[in-house]
Amino acid sequence: MNKLPDIKSQFPEWYHEVVYQSELADQSPVRGCIVIRPYGTALWENIKDIVDKKIKDTGHHNAIFPLLIPKSFIEREAKHVEGFSPELAVVTIAGGKELDEPYVIRPTSETIIHYMFARWIKSWRDLPLKINQWANVIRWEMRTRPFLRTTEFYWQEGHTAHETLEEALAEVDLMLNEYVDLAENYLAIPVISGTKSEQEKFPGADKTCTFEAIMPDGRALQMGTSHLISQSFAKTFEMRFQNRQGELEYPYLTSWAVTTRLIGAVVMTHGDNKGIIIPPKIAPIQVVIVPILKKDADNNAVLATVQDIAQRLKAHNVRVHVDKNEHETPGAKFYHWELKGVPLRIEVGPRDLEKNQIVVVDRLDSQKKMISLPHFEQEILIALDGLQSQLFDRAKQRRDSMIKSIDKLVTFGPLLEKEGIAVITGWCQRPSCEALLKEYSASIRVLLDQATHNECFNCTNASKCDVIIARSY
Amino acid sequence: MNKLPDIKSQFPEWYHEVVYQSELADQSPVRGCIVIRPYGTALWENIKDIVDKKIKDTGHHNAIFPLLIPKSFIEREAKHVEGFSPELAVVTIAGGKELDEPYVIRPTSETIIHYMFARWIKSWRDLPLKINQWANVIRWEMRTRPFLRTTEFYWQEGHTAHETLEEALAEVDLMLNEYVDLAENYLAIPVISGTKSEQEKFPGADKTCTFEAIMPDGRALQMGTSHLISQSFAKTFEMRFQNRQGELEYPYLTSWAVTTRLIGAVVMTHGDNKGIIIPPKIAPIQVVIVPILKKDADNNAVLATVQDIAQRLKAHNVRVHVDKNEHETPGAKFYHWELKGVPLRIEVGPRDLEKNQIVVVDRLDSQKKMISLPHFEQEILIALDGLQSQLFDRAKQRRDSMIKSIDKLVTFGPLLEKEGIAVITGWCQRPSCEALLKEYSASIRVLLDQATHNECFNCTNASKCDVIIARSY
Repeated sequence: MNKLPDIKSQFPEWYHEVVYQSELADQSPVRGCIVIRPYGTALWENIKDIVDKKIKDTGHHNAIFPLLIPKSFIEREAKHVEGFSPELAVVTIAGGKELDEPYVIRPTSETIIHYMFARWIKSWRDLPLKINQWANVIRWEMRTRPFLRTTEFYWQEGHTAHETLEEALAEVDLMLNEYVDLAENYLAIPVISGTKSEQEKFPGADKTCTFEAIMPDGRALQMGTSHLISQSFAKTFEMRFQNRQGELEYPYLTSWAVTTRLIGAVVMTHGDNKGIIIPPKIAPIQVVIVPILKKDADNNAVLATVQDIAQRLKAHNVRVHVDKNEHETPGAKFYHWELKGVPLRIEVGPRDLEKNQIVVVDRLDSQKKMISLPHFEQEILIALDGLQSQLFDRAKQRRDSMIKSIDKLVTFGPLLEKEGIAVITGWCQRPSCEALLKEYSASIRVLLDQATHNECFNCTNASKCDVIIARSY
Repeated sequence: MNKLPDIKSQFPEWYHEVVYQSELADQSPVRGCIVIRPYGTALWENIKDIVDKKIKDTGHHNAIFPLLIPKSFIEREAKHVEGFSPELAVVTIAGGKELDEPYVIRPTSETIIHYMFARWIKSWRDLPLKINQWANVIRWEMRTRPFLRTTEFYWQEGHTAHETLEEALAEVDLMLNEYVDLAENYLAIPVISGTKSEQEKFPGADKTCTFEAIMPDGRALQMGTSHLISQSFAKTFEMRFQNRQGELEYPYLTSWAVTTRLIGAVVMTHGDNKGIIIPPKIAPIQVVIVPILKKDADNNAVLATVQDIAQRLKAHNVRVHVDKNEHETPGAKFYHWELKGVPLRIEVGPRDLEKNQIVVVDRLDSQKKMISLPHFEQEILIALDGLQSQLFDRAKQRRDSMIKSIDKLVTFGPLLEKEGIAVITGWCQRPSCEALLKEYSASIRVLLDQATHNECFNCTNASKCDVIIARSY
């Protein structure tokens, strides 16, 4: 195993290495695709369970739609095809024959789901229709990075139809807020939420809401989106319902998604020079127990205690792993589990047994703490909660220190990359000013629901709202 | 909604209609693919949770491998390519360009998983490697039927590597037994398990174990398989490990899978002329509560009781749905939930309130039973358990009556279709006798671990083992 590159001076290299060394993922023989290894899959399953519960608790139902979409479907909605056609993977041969009409592998499922919605929605009584799908999608991206941008990725895509615009807008907000709760209270990542500019909207959306985090290098990471979809989709697929007045009407549509990119956000936000750090609420292993075994000695008492500790923690629904491997030194094990970001480590050796205590080491501050055995469970639970909050607080402090309030592009433009910062400033909402950000490889990430700057970051027109500007992933 | 075709006289038509009418699935615009609707998806999720727990409890870990496989991978193993190439969907264009090497959409993932195994397995310490993947796969089938055979389907595919042949064979048996437990104790479907003949093996397997059920029309349904994979896969992908003696050796491989086909098995096994019947352990809704509301009357007392009942059942982890729809009559609701196979229905009307009782109706025998309210939860739990057993017993009785012990093909051949039966008989294990079954569109489904017939079903040679012969899905 190679030493990790320094996280401060070589952040991209650090990220690339830590994803593989921590065994979240491995490279694959398929262009731009990774293999998500068991540790990464367990992390994704934990995140997925939280999201799935949120989706179901808010009245949505999962369904499963085909992977393949007739090519003509994608082409029906003008903006949609413009946005996605450069990235499509196309099946032209199947069952040994050239197909009359090719299929594309879904880059997103609006078109096929709206086709089905049109079959299912007849009357206002069929609304709201609130569907979610857990799926793999493919977008043939030019540059890929593990988890952050891969040719194939996993996500959930919610798709809903509503009687009124107000109801649809409320749905867009509802799911955005659920996502923000996921990010802050489970992934321990502070985020900024708001709307996207016209330029940055989803292809085919009337409105796109986003929640973004600022990574340690100052770049913004879009963690997920919630859209009000243009009614042109409903028109394209002849999705109409009889309203309460008996008239035929087009429903209002939303879609919203989070992806395996969230894993990349967790890695970048919390990691350090020792490896990744996984917040306790989503950690596949919350506590690793390392018995300190002596060569040529009777280790049975230690091993029995370790088993007992593991059982007692499991009874409190703590996810525990006992590392009994006899071929590695305790030091090698510590290194390994720190690299993999397990929140707490418990060490138990013969001397600890004598004192009826265990040693607990926190992944964040590496401090050793002695805990007496009789009632250690509560202390572990408190330590896990504490670590969850500390990770969030630390990330928020850093994030806040990285967003600078600066009035003018001439000032902040060159600083974005050089100092690794993001900027909060004012904008007149004209695309011509927005376009100048390209010179700095930056963009408007979020339009905020506030206006504290008087002037646009570029021109002398009045600012209509504050915006966050940053380079991005 | 059309009346269902008669299950006895029009079984295939009944199946086709009931799958759509019960809202398990809908037809899709993609050749041979269905949309699995929310009710079908919830059923699949329940089955998936049971299987996933079994897989994890037996020491396997989930991982996620790419959907696309380089075409050359499939071609590396001779029998494998012969088995799958007619069914492949091929991506030839991606990102707007013709690909130098096409990708196929996985029909199964042995090749790409073994490629990764070769990277991960270096020493006997890395073994056993026990991986599972939940995935969608595509096989371009000629004739498709919802759930039973679809172009795209969902499954789990387990892939393991072991130090010794004995260990690999034990793994094949272990997972076969887990599947049999799933079928009998959760899906309430009695199955016959055993090995496949050379002819019927998985392309590239040294040994295929199967578990099959006999459907009401006498056809066998292969519900899942567990294979000892040929070492030629390990050789093809240069998967070698250093054994305990320090020598390089090829590991022994297994794979095993169950698919969304299980839903079709449940529908066919338990359904009747009113619709499907879902065994309580996997039912998305175990109890539906229908309040009997009076027009222009105060229904608050009934509605409050219904809410209370629902809460009390939820506290016992019963999956409850309250059908408060005001636009449908109770009769229409009864019809609807019977069609969807909900195990128990509770009716609560004003007169029931006066008597402090509820009416419970069993989906299997339609008998109305009064239960007094104060301690109704236990009675509901007992009724659900009872229904689970009754469904299994009923299916087993029918299955046993449909398998006839008949010595000779000339006798049973014509009866297979005409009388809708399956046959247990003897076989000399020569392919030439097996080949004659094609005349009756039948095949050897399972080789049993017993030999009670003296002679082969075709020739006068001694029988080497009993076999089950049937037409099949």
